Parts: sequence; structure tokens; C-alpha cells
Amino acid sequence: MRDWATTDTGPATVQVMTAGGAGRPGAPAQGYDAVVVGGGTIGLTCAWRMARRGLHVAVVDPEPGRGASWVAAGMLAPVTEVHYTEERLVALTMASARRWPSFAVELEADAGSAIAYRTCGTLVVDGDDDDRAWSDELYRFQRSLGLDVERLNGRRVRQLEPNIAPGVRSGLLANGDHQVQTRRLVTALLAAGTARGVQWHRFPATAIDVAGGTVRGVEVNGESLWAPVVVLAAGCWSGSIPGVPAGVVPPVRPVKGQILRLAGEARRILLQRSVRGLVQGSSVYLVPRADGTVVIGATVEERGFDTTVTAGAVYELLRDARRVVPGVAELELVEARAGLRPGSPDNAPVVGATTVSGLVLATGHYRNGILLSPLTADAVAAVVAGEEVPPEMAPFTPARFGPARPASSATATL
Amino acid sequence: MRDWATTDTGPATVQVMTAGGAGRPGAPAQGYDAVVVGGGTIGLTCAWRMARRGLHVAVVDPEPGRGASWVAAGMLAPVTEVHYTEERLVALTMASARRWPSFAVELEADAGSAIAYRTCGTLVVDGDDDDRAWSDELYRFQRSLGLDVERLNGRRVRQLEPNIAPGVRSGLLANGDHQVQTRRLVTALLAAGTARGVQWHRFPATAIDVAGGTVRGVEVNGESLWAPVVVLAAGCWSGSIPGVPAGVVPPVRPVKGQILRLAGEARRILLQRSVRGLVQGSSVYLVPRADGTVVIGATVEERGFDTTVTAGAVYELLRDARRVVPGVAELELVEARAGLRPGSPDNAPVVGATTVSGLVLATGHYRNGILLSPLTADAVAAVVAGEEVPPEMAPFTPARFGPARPASSATATL
Repeated sequence: MRDWATTDTGPATVQVMTAGGAGRPGAPAQGYDAVVVGGGTIGLTCAWRMARRGLHVAVVDPEPGRGASWVAAGMLAPVTEVHYTEERLVALTMASARRWPSFAVELEADAGSAIAYRTCGTLVVDGDDDDRAWSDELYRFQRSLGLDVERLNGRRVRQLEPNIAPGVRSGLLANGDHQVQTRRLVTALLAAGTARGVQWHRFPATAIDVAGGTVRGVEVNGESLWAPVVVLAAGCWSGSIPGVPAGVVPPVRPVKGQILRLAGEARRILLQRSVRGLVQGSSVYLVPRADGTVVIGATVEERGFDTTVTAGAVYELLRDARRVVPGVAELELVEARAGLRPGSPDNAPVVGATTVSGLVLATGHYRNGILLSPLTADAVAAVVAGEEVPPEMAPFTPARFGPARPASSATATL
Repeated sequence: MRDWATTDTGPATVQVMTAGGAGRPGAPAQGYDAVVVGGGTIGLTCAWRMARRGLHVAVVDPEPGRGASWVAAGMLAPVTEVHYTEERLVALTMASARRWPSFAVELEADAGSAIAYRTCGTLVVDGDDDDRAWSDELYRFQRSLGLDVERLNGRRVRQLEPNIAPGVRSGLLANGDHQVQTRRLVTALLAAGTARGVQWHRFPATAIDVAGGTVRGVEVNGESLWAPVVVLAAGCWSGSIPGVPAGVVPPVRPVKGQILRLAGEARRILLQRSVRGLVQGSSVYLVPRADGTVVIGATVEERGFDTTVTAGAVYELLRDARRVVPGVAELELVEARAGLRPGSPDNAPVVGATTVSGLVLATGHYRNGILLSPLTADAVAAVVAGEEVPPEMAPFTPARFGPARPASSATATL
């Protein structure tokens, strides 16, 4: 963090008044070491981790924690999500999964609250023979990658989870796929950030200030937040904040996911671990909580910025969940909600420095945002500090999408 | 209304203090001509109609209009509900349906608001050949009763409703089955009651005061509401109010119904009229509103006083609705809710005087409460005034359920 200390915004914790420059003439301004645009799990984690390193950090978000993170089921599934991805992404997700246990401990310590990180494993079950053929493929691919996954017959499936549908005749057990309660996670990230001095600006970012190829700060609510570093972590909205030069705007789009929350009773737990079902080619997951709640997800829909809960999606989620675990029919439907994942052209994250000096991207995490938050935040903090990013993150630089290639290495651009 | 004026509670509009008797010693008391226990559609309609006749009326309900009425779809379906019932009940429901047009006009005039009473007819469609065989039976029965019902082939069904599923090959059209927006209905009943001087006591009734075989009033929130007439119209809770002698307690039970509300767009109306589908033996209805809303109902469940919305019921309602009108899948699911219908041993209403002088029952309306409210209220007002009840209501006296037979005619017991 040599660079920011030499910028012209002065000592980062000092309130400064600007008479021009990036802000409106005469508008008030505040100085920070870094401003994070977007208070989802990624943005909150980046802010907290930078603050732990001693930076003075602000987060700009009208409702921190209430975007896709609030909707997400919280599966940490590098193994069972493998079929959606490719080998470099598996290396990334596995690396982030390895950081989760210590990340959870540190977060709970800073926040003073629990996030219910559960190392319960994930069971994948096959609906019929066609589904089994598909899951055989998955199994072979997972094994070829050296992943910890075990083939189970129907009897063994039901030993592990007696409430799985009687028709299920085979499955896979991924012991390394865990879960976290996302709403507790964002609540803890807010508390941990506050404990480390993070400042909250609960308004939309109206613009990112860029001048002469260098970021100057963020405009919010008529105020200029001056900072030598801006982390753009606004999920699927990361491409919509004014002020970012055309070639640097991250190529993200919203990918709608609808999800259900069912309430059960803590004394009648339906499932011990997360269950994914492949039912006639359609994928569904059920994530159980200790209080009897079961989260059922999720659709994957290309519908733009639409968060309507549709009758058809609720129907299909319940249909598929019932086929895997018939007992869910008895649970109370307490919530149906849609969130917008940030998809990228290859549906892999977009994390790292850009050709705009000081502007760092942390977006495009698609279905893996919760899982990838520890590694993403460490990568962002490394970029900001002029350190090497974790090698697994290196391939996911914004530079891979075309002309807006950083002039040299990621650290050199800051 | 000769009887009540001669009772010992004095002029009905005078506030009286009781030093004993029905209330707590020293508790405040108010006098009314009639107190209605229960502010659902039945109770509100009874109160408003009595008030229109010049009576000073109070309604006791912690949340008027928010019980089963708030959940109900508002189908006014004497013809298409016929298969659940028997011939005497058809005569009753048809008689009440005939009162609906003038009832709606009078209510809207008193309330100053619209209730969206629509004489749109109801279409019954058959899912498959088995369903068609069943609906042939229904059609023959309806015709034998002289009901206005028309057999349609698939082409004609789709002429009337282009969004019906292509697989539907036959149907029935009941021109006389209408609908009303129940939430507007109860809102209007509250306004109309207020306009006619009805007083609202927004607390639970703690007891009905009965002494010497005569009703004295109602206890509510530590207060005694004195009245020579008490109308017990508390839906499925009508059997749970303390103070009613054992043989007079109405034999009602809660029958759970789960229902969905889907939002659409006024410019893309999916259906012109209410549609009932019989799908593989399972019955579903879709009630369209002018604003694009579609109400889908309803389960019929014997679960006691349970209003949990279950995943299984939501699934089944959506499944059956989609089979009849596939386009509902695109609508927004905005509400899932359960209500409790008041069922009786024969699932017909329990309306009339009891062996307790002054205590009138108006409950047990099961699936027909909205439809039967005009006739029920007229019957109750007639009983209270010492007039003949409408002949169609006469068979549905509380006396039919056993030993608690009124000493003589309904009017004589008051």
C-alpha cells in the first residue's frame, strides 16, 4: 500500500473539501484509502479484508447484503458445481474452499456472531437411469480432477438420508462441499467491517470518477468519496455504474435465480446435508438448516434485470424437490424470491486490476460468489497492496475479455 | 323488532352501567339492539342489513374481514358447486345468487365503493376422458335441476377462452355463476356498516352472556355489551366462544383451504371468466380479475385450526392450474395463503334461532359463505324482526343437528 499514501487526497482519514475536480464544485468530499462499490458478499468481504490490513475503507450500497447474497442458498460446492465449469475454475473454487474454515473463524471473531458454516458434505442423487448415466460422466470427470467424491448405491443413499425418495437408486457423496447461512454471513460481514472501521454510504453510487486514466473516487448522494483505489463489486450491476471507460466496463449480465425457503421443525430434520437431484435432466438442490429450514433452488434464467417470482418457476422447483425428497411437501412455504447472479461471458469471475489505474474489478462470480468470496477478497487486497494475487485467481483477470488489457502486470497499474 | 324493545336492558342506544349480572361487577357496559360476534362476510353483512333496518348494532371481531373472507376467491357459483352438495342446498344457493345483483347495488351505494361484482359466467373444463365422464354426470344432474348450463366442445371452449390448454376437448358453461372481489367486498361492508351506524369492537369476544335461557350480551375486552340479540357468526370459531350452552354450540369445524394469487397485466388478460378444471380427478379453479390477477384455489383439508401454507399444496394448485391454463406459469406469484372455512356436519349453513332466546346462529357456510351472505343476512334480520325467514333457508335451522331443538318456531323463541 505504498501507492495510495502518496496521492493528492491527503491523509486518508481526513475530511477534505474540494472546490472542483471530480466532485461538483463546492460539494463535500471524504477521503478513503479504498472505496468499494457494491455491498454484496464480494464487496463486503473485500472491504472487511482490506480494513483488516489497516486501510480506511468505505462501502457504497443502498442496501448492503440485500442483493443476490440475500437470496443465495449458501452452498459452498466446488465439487458438485464442477459440471457447470472448467478445470481452471475448479482449481479456483477448490482454492477458495480451502480458505473457508479459517475465513469463517476470523469472520466470526471480528463480527462476534455465528455464520453457521457447516462442513456437512453434499449428496447428489439420480432420478432415473438417464440421470444416472449423466452422473456417471460427472463422477468420472470429478475423479479425473482428483476430487473427493464417492459413488453410492440406493441403500447407502438412504442410510445417509432416509428421506430421499424410494425410487432413487444411486448417488454421489462429495464430502468437501459445505454450506453457510448467507443471511448470517452478510450480517457478520457488516458487523466485522464496522468493527474494523469500514464506513457505510447507503446510497447508490452515481458515478465512478476517472481522470487521466486514473481513478479518483466515487460520487454518491451528491458527495465525492475520494480514494486512490475503487473496487467495483456491484454484482450484475457492475457494468451499469457511469464513469467507467467503455473498454473497462466489466462484461457482466444478470442471470436470474428463483429460490424457495421452506420452514420445518428443528426436531424433525428432513435432511442432514445438502442434496442435489438431477431429475429428468433438470437440476434442483435442497439445502437444510439446523432449524429445520430447507432452501430449494434454483432456476437459471436469462431475463435481464427481472426479479419477478413466477408461478412456473415455483412449480418446477417444488416438483423437482418433491421427486427427490417427498417430505418437503409437508413443510411450510415461507418465501419465494428471485436474485440476479452476475454472469460473465465465460461465467467465471472477473477479478483484478484494469487499465484504469486504481480501479479493481471483483465481479462476475455467477453461481459461485459465496464460495469465492475469501479468495476474491484476498486477491483484491493483494492487488491493492501491490502483492502477487493468489495463482488460482490469475487467469480470471479482466484482461481476458479483450482490448482493455492492463498496460503491464496487475500490480504495476496501481 | 318488538321483542328487544321490551327487554330489561333499556333503550338500546343508552350506555348503561351494570353492578353485576352478566358483566364483571363494576365493569363498563354498552347497550345495543344486536351484537354480532364475528366480522367476516357473514357477520358484516348481517350487521349492515340489521343496521339498515334501524337497529343499533355492534360487531365484535379483532380483525374484521381478515378471516376466511380475506382468503376466499369470491366465486358465486351455485351451478358449478352443485356437485358438492344436494338439492335443497342448490335451492338455497340459487336463491342467494338471485339476490346478489340488488345486494351489490345497495352495498356499493351505502359504502361508496365498488366491489367488482362481475356476471362473467364460469367455464368448467375436462382434463381427460375420465374427467369428461364425471362432468357428463354433473351436466345431467345440473340439467335435471333446471340449471342454466351448456355443453361445449373443445373448439367452442377455446373460442371463449383461447388460453385454455390445447388438450382440453370439452367443457360446460354456467352463465349464472359469477364472481366478486372479496377484499373489496369486506372493505365495502365495513364502510357500509359504519355509514349505517354499526359500532366496531376490535377485540375477541371473551364470552357470550346467557342467563335463564336468554342471551344477555357479549363480553369483550373487559366490557359488557348488553343486547337482547346476539348473532353468532364467527365462522369456524363459532363453536369456540365460551358461554353458549353445550347443546346450542354450533357443530362447526375448520376446513383448511389454501389459495394462490398471481399477478398479471390488465392489458394481457389470460381469462375472461372463472374457469374450473377437473384434472385427473383433482379440482382446481382460476378466477380472473380485471387487473390481470388470477386467483387459484383451493385445497380442502381437514387439519384443525392450521393455516400453514404448505409446499405440497402450492405445488398441486400450480400443477393443476398449469394443466388447464398453461399461461399461468408466466404470471407472478404474489401470495399464498390459507383460510379456514366453517364446515358443518352436512357442510350446509347453520342459520336461525336457537333454544337460547335471542341467540341466532349464522355459520357453517363452508365453501359458500360469500354467495350465501345476502340470503343469510336477510334470514337473520327476519328472525330478529320476528318475520318469516326466506323459505329456502328454513331447512338450514340449527335444530336439524339434534337435541337443541327450538321450543317452537324460530320467531317464537325470541
